[in-house]
Amino acid sequence: MAHSYEYPRPALAVDCVVFGFDEGDLKVLLIQRDLEPFAGKWALPGGFVRIEESLDQAALRELKEETGVGKVYLEQLYTFGEPKRDPRERVVTAAYYALVKLSDHRIKGATDARDAAWFSISDLPRVAFDHEGIIETALRRLQGKVRYEPVGFELLPPKFTLTQLQHLYETILETTLDKRNFRKKILGMNLLIETDEIEQDVAHRAARLYRFHEAKYRRLEKEGFNFEL
Amino acid sequence: MAHSYEYPRPALAVDCVVFGFDEGDLKVLLIQRDLEPFAGKWALPGGFVRIEESLDQAALRELKEETGVGKVYLEQLYTFGEPKRDPRERVVTAAYYALVKLSDHRIKGATDARDAAWFSISDLPRVAFDHEGIIETALRRLQGKVRYEPVGFELLPPKFTLTQLQHLYETILETTLDKRNFRKKILGMNLLIETDEIEQDVAHRAARLYRFHEAKYRRLEKEGFNFEL
Repeated sequence: MAHSYEYPRPALAVDCVVFGFDEGDLKVLLIQRDLEPFAGKWALPGGFVRIEESLDQAALRELKEETGVGKVYLEQLYTFGEPKRDPRERVVTAAYYALVKLSDHRIKGATDARDAAWFSISDLPRVAFDHEGIIETALRRLQGKVRYEPVGFELLPPKFTLTQLQHLYETILETTLDKRNFRKKILGMNLLIETDEIEQDVAHRAARLYRFHEAKYRRLEKEGFNFEL
Repeated sequence: MAHSYEYPRPALAVDCVVFGFDEGDLKVLLIQRDLEPFAGKWALPGGFVRIEESLDQAALRELKEETGVGKVYLEQLYTFGEPKRDPRERVVTAAYYALVKLSDHRIKGATDARDAAWFSISDLPRVAFDHEGIIETALRRLQGKVRYEPVGFELLPPKFTLTQLQHLYETILETTLDKRNFRKKILGMNLLIETDEIEQDVAHRAARLYRFHEAKYRRLEKEGFNFEL
């Protein structure tokens, strides 16, 4: 086939930043590299795009191959193309990100001869290539998203306490929020439905359980809002 | 040099969606292709990424070469990588977008043997490849941005009327806004400073001129807000 561009081409890769939320901790899924460069270092799951697959397909395939994690909604984040970002040669990578409920995605251990593990965002190891910057970009995107769209439906159990919801926001935003103010704002959005149930098996005074108003949630997801915290 | 990935590689390109605002009309900058495929068709300015340049550099270079337009702030939009998007072979393109004051970027005509022209977003010609979808994606991004960040500083003259500002929002959002409501909201943000000047040389009753409060503008640009319209 006649090629449209006869000069040297960058290699094209994908990388996935998968955030998992569990017990009030925001984590990132990393794999341990078994090849040079950076052999033995932790890195984002990812790899080269095949000539016949779309970028979305490549991201899902690599994530599945390297970590066993499937069925996640990966959203394209940003394409990183600095000429020196890979010491081997020019590699441009389209980064993706996703937010999953960690309990749904227990890592099966070494798939594809690699180790995969969740690391707390507040205690990451040194990572290969420019992956630290990619994780940082994904976290900023997530922090932006939380302010303009409801987040939580995919991360919390179907019924949850206001404290759990506040914890989720605090974890993503890396800050502490005023309890009264948070409750006033979140309840004011009419996004939550109070159930007639309370927490079970807790040492402290059992708190009321809430659930999301699904129709309202989906509408706000589409329309956006501004959650000033 | 040993290559890290020995299989066939997609070609890597960049494309630029440059929006220009002028006299209440939102326009897009297109070039007329002189090569197959789609010879004679209008398309986004863009081209292949050179092995030694970053994606940002490639986008700026192509835009300058093909349209003469330089010194714009191009923001990365999305990378389009569907396998069949280019009939020649696999080409993945990182799309960029920018919003400029059209009067600052009069097109010099045929640069690089191509014709370049501004087209109203409401009256675009048929464009090559998947460029219609890329323009659509850029427009949605711009519409989102307008709701969460101040826009206008770069597009309006230093002093402008509230009608001009409303027009800008209406054009980007492709809707009409209630005048009283718009004014109440925009003035309530304390983003505007009333000057002691009025419009010159207008047939209708001359309106008050405003300017942006630069510090507040920059702060809102960073912090975001929600401009519900």
